[in-house]
Amino acid sequence: MPQQSPRELPEGDPFGADTLPYGVFTTPDAPERRRIGVRYGAYVLDAAAAAAAHGSAHTALLTAPTLNPLLAAGRPVWQAVRAEVRTWVTADGGAEHFHPLEGVTLHLPFEVADYVDFYASEHHATNVGRIFRPDSEPLTPNWKHLPIGYHGRAGTVVVSGTDVVRPQGQRKAPADARPSFGPSLRLDIEAEVGFVVGAPAPANTPVALADFREHVFGVCLVNDWSARDVQAWEYVPLGPFLGKSFATSVSAWITPLDAFDAARTAPPERTFPLLPYLDDSGAEPGGIDLRIEVAINGETVSRPPFASMYWTAAQQLAHMTVNGASLRTGDFYASGTVSGPDPDQRGCLLELTEGKGPYLADGDVVTLTAWAPGPAGARIGLGEVTGRIVPAPGTAAP
Amino acid sequence: MPQQSPRELPEGDPFGADTLPYGVFTTPDAPERRRIGVRYGAYVLDAAAAAAAHGSAHTALLTAPTLNPLLAAGRPVWQAVRAEVRTWVTADGGAEHFHPLEGVTLHLPFEVADYVDFYASEHHATNVGRIFRPDSEPLTPNWKHLPIGYHGRAGTVVVSGTDVVRPQGQRKAPADARPSFGPSLRLDIEAEVGFVVGAPAPANTPVALADFREHVFGVCLVNDWSARDVQAWEYVPLGPFLGKSFATSVSAWITPLDAFDAARTAPPERTFPLLPYLDDSGAEPGGIDLRIEVAINGETVSRPPFASMYWTAAQQLAHMTVNGASLRTGDFYASGTVSGPDPDQRGCLLELTEGKGPYLADGDVVTLTAWAPGPAGARIGLGEVTGRIVPAPGTAAP
Repeated sequence: MPQQSPRELPEGDPFGADTLPYGVFTTPDAPERRRIGVRYGAYVLDAAAAAAAHGSAHTALLTAPTLNPLLAAGRPVWQAVRAEVRTWVTADGGAEHFHPLEGVTLHLPFEVADYVDFYASEHHATNVGRIFRPDSEPLTPNWKHLPIGYHGRAGTVVVSGTDVVRPQGQRKAPADARPSFGPSLRLDIEAEVGFVVGAPAPANTPVALADFREHVFGVCLVNDWSARDVQAWEYVPLGPFLGKSFATSVSAWITPLDAFDAARTAPPERTFPLLPYLDDSGAEPGGIDLRIEVAINGETVSRPPFASMYWTAAQQLAHMTVNGASLRTGDFYASGTVSGPDPDQRGCLLELTEGKGPYLADGDVVTLTAWAPGPAGARIGLGEVTGRIVPAPGTAAP
Repeated sequence: MPQQSPRELPEGDPFGADTLPYGVFTTPDAPERRRIGVRYGAYVLDAAAAAAAHGSAHTALLTAPTLNPLLAAGRPVWQAVRAEVRTWVTADGGAEHFHPLEGVTLHLPFEVADYVDFYASEHHATNVGRIFRPDSEPLTPNWKHLPIGYHGRAGTVVVSGTDVVRPQGQRKAPADARPSFGPSLRLDIEAEVGFVVGAPAPANTPVALADFREHVFGVCLVNDWSARDVQAWEYVPLGPFLGKSFATSVSAWITPLDAFDAARTAPPERTFPLLPYLDDSGAEPGGIDLRIEVAINGETVSRPPFASMYWTAAQQLAHMTVNGASLRTGDFYASGTVSGPDPDQRGCLLELTEGKGPYLADGDVVTLTAWAPGPAGARIGLGEVTGRIVPAPGTAAP
């Protein structure tokens, strides 16, 4: 592959000096030494090496094997480091600190504390409600009063590129007398956007809408893999469990929240007045104009618009802490499936096929990508999330 | 308080040489130095100091500030350390390694990875179903085919003795037009039994029923505090969230699973044949004859029998991993509310008052204790779980 200079980005590259996402990488000569990197075009800047070379005061934070110490440092430090990194990628010299992206291995960039998954798209919740509960109103009465969410399994959050083994479990069609067991027959995706908590908050100090940026470090794509047959049988009354807990894939790159300033957009008009802790009518626009693309085996199947989400990430954080729950560095929450109003904007196969399937086959590769408008016509990218479905153990086709 | 010798236990003390639970403590002269302790009667053995004095090969594991390294070491090490500790508490000498329990501060004994809460009592699920869903069958169709569970918030698991601040949140009575916000008016307890995972399991290697003891290190009491008004409004369709996530209290002491060998008991007869991965009909008895006592402000209000649980801890672990989910050291799961068949055996106020209340008042102190039969008439104790309700911020009575 021809190697361009790190300083010469192709026109429109979404990983330019206005993006600068953080990740964790290793190189083949030191596979045990995890290092913080910053993506710049098709290169990874070794942030620790660059920091040391420039005598940065933040060298220690950038020399950690995960992003967690940087996450914990808080917004003033995030801003200072981002300004420094921008000078490092654009200044002359320092070429030895860049590694071609295809030559490094990317790792889960942060240690996940608690993982929460929301359900913030009105289109998704309505579509799913119609399919799962055809005899009821598609939206439950609480849906427009609070951002519905639930805790997921932090220990099975995996980095983009990790194979996803088809989960096994119980399922029972309405006509079946008894449940049966086997590999999921309805393995699905959920295209979501994730938010990484940096600065913690002690118990009993709810995070107000206006303090969102003090706590949330950055944004990434999420594929919340879902076994629909397992989920449908298990989820009443306490919610999804094994239908989701086998794997949740996230980008290898966390894009700082500040990169999306030019992409801020107002959320949809609210149907009901919101309780004060969720009322963002006078706040800065809480939506982000992120355009997501879902591809299966290289073919685009959907373009979910994140701007259409009813609940914002700031509202989700305010809700998550309003009961007194503390926040930890590394807490991670996802938006819920992003679905727009149009049929080709739906973020999961359940919706795209109106419950009829087909779902994912063994060998399928699902890739989510996204970008947002940046300053002066630039594009702000989110790192892709990709994963290949491999057969459940002992069930490979002959 | 008169100080007995550590070697002279009162008759029937449930923390004798057959119990030996592990915890983490500090002393007033070194409040930053967390140490592993073993409870013996009304004393705490400094395990690291005793190990060093006896030249134990496990001194390093016992010198950690949490139980996690010991948890990760696996069953052969757990058994070897337990045998050593038993000689240390019963041998002559070493009195300098014992601290009176009332002179130490106890801490959360392990770092919680993922926290899962089950729903394993048929009596509890039936009672709650009748109250929350009066127009439906009390047990959902899946209930007797799989152990229903959901992920909770690991970051708000707190040690016994931690004050519980009354949570705030949204609630809406059926007659209300809109939800309102404020301190929970229906703050409840849930008396549960928790299981601490020691040895991890990689993804896609389900833990069979027979391998339960290889992975689960020990047992403790859990009070899964629940805001019933918040929960009732939020929980459809994705399960409990803020109604539970503000605090979950656990014992300061983790009693090794092996201490309950004499208390093993068969679970209730199964209504339906179980799928093979859950079928324990030929296995060692999966129940534990633990007798729990719930006291509010010193008055016993219930005596829930853990032996009455429909689903066993081994079944819960098998279910939790059957979809391919990995297990981490520090994963923690709770049984769900323990309720027996009789009215005075119910493990929460929702059931004890048949949904009418009263619930907990500010200032109330709730304490769970439990014991199980041990060898030769001994009692095996679980460390208590206690917590006092304090007012929500800004809402204290004048």
